[in-house]
Amino acid sequence: MSANAPRRKFWGWGYEGHGLDPADEKKLARSLSARFAVSLGEPTPPPRTEDLRLRPPRIEPPASLAPLCSTDPVDRAGHTYGKSFRDVVRGYARDFSNPPDLVAHPRDERDVVALLDWCDQHDVIAIPYGGGSSVVGGTTLPADDWRPAMSIDLGRLDRVVEIDRSSRAARIQAGVLGPALEDQLRPHGLTLRHFPQSFELSTLGGWIATRAGGHFATLYTHIDDFVESLRVVTPRGQLETRRLPGSGAGPSPDRMFLGSEGILGIITEAWMRLQNRPTFRASASVRFSDFRAGAECVRALSQSGLSPSNCRLLDAGEAMTSGAGSGKESILVLGFESADHDPAPRMSRALEICRDHRGEVPLDAGATRREGDPSASRPTAVGAWRSAFLSAPYLRDSLVAIGMISETFESATTWDRFPALHAGVTEAVTRALRRVCGDGSITCRFTHVYPDGPAPYYTVLAPGRRGAVLEQWAEIKQAAAEALLEYGGTITHHHAVGRDHRPWYDRQRPEPFARALVAAKCELDPNAVLNPGVLIDPRRSA
Amino acid sequence: MSANAPRRKFWGWGYEGHGLDPADEKKLARSLSARFAVSLGEPTPPPRTEDLRLRPPRIEPPASLAPLCSTDPVDRAGHTYGKSFRDVVRGYARDFSNPPDLVAHPRDERDVVALLDWCDQHDVIAIPYGGGSSVVGGTTLPADDWRPAMSIDLGRLDRVVEIDRSSRAARIQAGVLGPALEDQLRPHGLTLRHFPQSFELSTLGGWIATRAGGHFATLYTHIDDFVESLRVVTPRGQLETRRLPGSGAGPSPDRMFLGSEGILGIITEAWMRLQNRPTFRASASVRFSDFRAGAECVRALSQSGLSPSNCRLLDAGEAMTSGAGSGKESILVLGFESADHDPAPRMSRALEICRDHRGEVPLDAGATRREGDPSASRPTAVGAWRSAFLSAPYLRDSLVAIGMISETFESATTWDRFPALHAGVTEAVTRALRRVCGDGSITCRFTHVYPDGPAPYYTVLAPGRRGAVLEQWAEIKQAAAEALLEYGGTITHHHAVGRDHRPWYDRQRPEPFARALVAAKCELDPNAVLNPGVLIDPRRSA
Repeated sequence: MSANAPRRKFWGWGYEGHGLDPADEKKLARSLSARFAVSLGEPTPPPRTEDLRLRPPRIEPPASLAPLCSTDPVDRAGHTYGKSFRDVVRGYARDFSNPPDLVAHPRDERDVVALLDWCDQHDVIAIPYGGGSSVVGGTTLPADDWRPAMSIDLGRLDRVVEIDRSSRAARIQAGVLGPALEDQLRPHGLTLRHFPQSFELSTLGGWIATRAGGHFATLYTHIDDFVESLRVVTPRGQLETRRLPGSGAGPSPDRMFLGSEGILGIITEAWMRLQNRPTFRASASVRFSDFRAGAECVRALSQSGLSPSNCRLLDAGEAMTSGAGSGKESILVLGFESADHDPAPRMSRALEICRDHRGEVPLDAGATRREGDPSASRPTAVGAWRSAFLSAPYLRDSLVAIGMISETFESATTWDRFPALHAGVTEAVTRALRRVCGDGSITCRFTHVYPDGPAPYYTVLAPGRRGAVLEQWAEIKQAAAEALLEYGGTITHHHAVGRDHRPWYDRQRPEPFARALVAAKCELDPNAVLNPGVLIDPRRSA
Repeated sequence: MSANAPRRKFWGWGYEGHGLDPADEKKLARSLSARFAVSLGEPTPPPRTEDLRLRPPRIEPPASLAPLCSTDPVDRAGHTYGKSFRDVVRGYARDFSNPPDLVAHPRDERDVVALLDWCDQHDVIAIPYGGGSSVVGGTTLPADDWRPAMSIDLGRLDRVVEIDRSSRAARIQAGVLGPALEDQLRPHGLTLRHFPQSFELSTLGGWIATRAGGHFATLYTHIDDFVESLRVVTPRGQLETRRLPGSGAGPSPDRMFLGSEGILGIITEAWMRLQNRPTFRASASVRFSDFRAGAECVRALSQSGLSPSNCRLLDAGEAMTSGAGSGKESILVLGFESADHDPAPRMSRALEICRDHRGEVPLDAGATRREGDPSASRPTAVGAWRSAFLSAPYLRDSLVAIGMISETFESATTWDRFPALHAGVTEAVTRALRRVCGDGSITCRFTHVYPDGPAPYYTVLAPGRRGAVLEQWAEIKQAAAEALLEYGGTITHHHAVGRDHRPWYDRQRPEPFARALVAAKCELDPNAVLNPGVLIDPRRSA
């Protein structure tokens, strides 16, 4: 890293100097004070490195590993949390009471092997760390396991190692961040097209370990579909799966590690399926009088076989927040893209389906823009939405600073259950907000849709009580999660389970499967050093 | 089953009275004798029920299970083998020396639980049996495990139990055969669109347990993609996964059972994602001067995002056998289908890609036929191919009767490796054929294609030496499998591993994954009664 490179914030999202400045935060506080009829007061200043008083490291690495390991307080503080609301609140509260003892920065897979072996032999917790963008406590130390801990930061494994143009695939190291990955693919005319909201600061390995949801609203919704093969380091040996476009040879080894969240091994690299960079793009915004009508239309679209790359239905509140709507209607942001052919016929049929569902389609909607056309650089509703989308995590830090409760949760369910789930979740959270905060909003959008159901994504915003927001949020989250489970949803469509979703994941997953997973875990990680507390408790359940 | 229903053959494919009659078999023998310059002699008559001399059952079911269990020799003989070349050869040879001791016919899941519990408690091998169409020894008794065995035939669990029209999904019992499944969906305008070559006599549960490849040449290539949730009975409890269109909550439980080939549990039912019945169809046959040019074109098509439902490239030999070509050119059978929109723009672009790759496109190719059009019932090249495709297993029995060696094997590999793999496999098998049979042919088609590689499917036909064909085939298979592995393919793209592919699967799968799978198996089936010898050896490896 050069001396002038922007420094990562150790207590919140992104880089120092990005996001809102203090004046903007005050403006935000005034505006939200008015909206929720409260008085939010002065923004909390962010913590400074000189405030850090960390527990001294409880272990020392051996000489052979010492050059890879850091005990720098900023490094350790920066690896203490992920980027959930809870995490940022604790950051602002200067609470770094349970940091990793060591932060390791392996340079290559061999280093990863050596570090993990040492952890395994010395009963040191090993926490694989990609971009640190977990919003479910996936990289924080367990609260009930007091062994010393090492955070293993894969950030130096950041290269595209090999490109197979013919198969449109690349061998990529797990620690590469989204932008650096795309930068390395661009000269080859290729792209992974995986753009989660955390894109700027999340890694390939993290996406795979958490089954991240990405760019495409249909078909290739999760990173899972793009994984061709994996290399994984476990305490009981390394493994590499065969590069195959498809196979029917037993249960898929890749699928055992996809979503394993660091409890079975550390993913060091993967062959990934890539796309050509799209040259045709068509997008449209369609208005619906209410969310329900929009959802019915999206159901038809999802079952049409048209496979839009974007099919994001925003309810009235989300549409207003993102600047795409007036706050009265739901907006469907529809997009098609291709590197091969004009998607106009698909867009045209999709808009016909929208009209059939009483969607209000602007007259000029859906025209195809071709790479190089003057119109291709014109700002669009989709573009505005994307830019707001990617800067939202910065905004969230400021919301915490001014004392707001601001968090999201997501799910997926079948179409037949969606209306009841949506009503149930909305009601449960609204009630909890009134009880806990007096006021607050819950809004919804679809991030991904399937022929058999949508993935609704909820955003909660409420004025918090200084010093009590963690307890307040816990009560709201509890209400939301209970409703999701009761109405047949999944506790997470793409944020992962981590430690924070355990109470509901434990009830959602079938018990014999959990036991099989524990058995697999005990085989590969018999000393349970890898990410304890995430997904399962091998010591308790085995 | 009514008294007049056709009886399943206990020794080969399909129903009695179907397939070639003795006169046709003689004609076939004459034609192939001429082709391979050999004298094939008289067809072996099929075995008769009165020839059966089976080992007496080594166990007796308890009174409570006796009504579910059959010791009828025809039933036991019919459950001795699958439908591979080896199986049919042994059938014609009247070799039923290792039949299951009991054949159980559970009526419902409760019966399955009771049967499996009894097997578990009495150390009786339990072999889950769907349609018995395994071509990899997936339902035969292990050769090296002499415990008594029960074949658990799921055939009575044959109903579509529940339909969710809104999510386009259905809850379906695992034992239903392809045609009965489609018959029950048709009145609802729905279809699973999973048509493996074994469609007539394979079951939903079998497809799921073996990760069967199906109808769609792109996108939804395996049954995996259509599984929304599963119910599985294991010796250590039952499990039901949550009905979800997508999820990111840990490793997918469904994916652990997809491809588990009966070693972890018995699949009793599944919620399956369905399709609307297509109303638009477009197809075309495109000629290529050679297979390599055709393959390059298919690569471009697979990476175009056009997602044809059919994209089967037949080499010259396959094209001639199926009646689609003269034996000089490769033929690409291209098809699009939709229940929503005219696929004409996609077909048109696909044919443009074919022309760019020097494919010879007939002038009238690719026109869309709409359901109800007079043209929709007109015979097509695709129709001719499909009909030959589905009757091929009947023909294979006759080929065995006249002493031919006739078998298929399949793989998948990335595009960069395909040319070397194809050349290597063809050469290795051609050499083996010359050495072992003096002559013989190997032909190839693509059954499924992916953006990162094709799934080539090979057919071997050679004159055998009476009494020695099993050894001859073993040598040919060995040559083929070694080449597949050496050149980076998978030992099976959709036929499964079973017992026959073990030597190569054992080398293909990463060792730590194998140990994790063994651990999962030991947890769910600690007495190793479920399908021993398939996929893994828990007793040896654990």
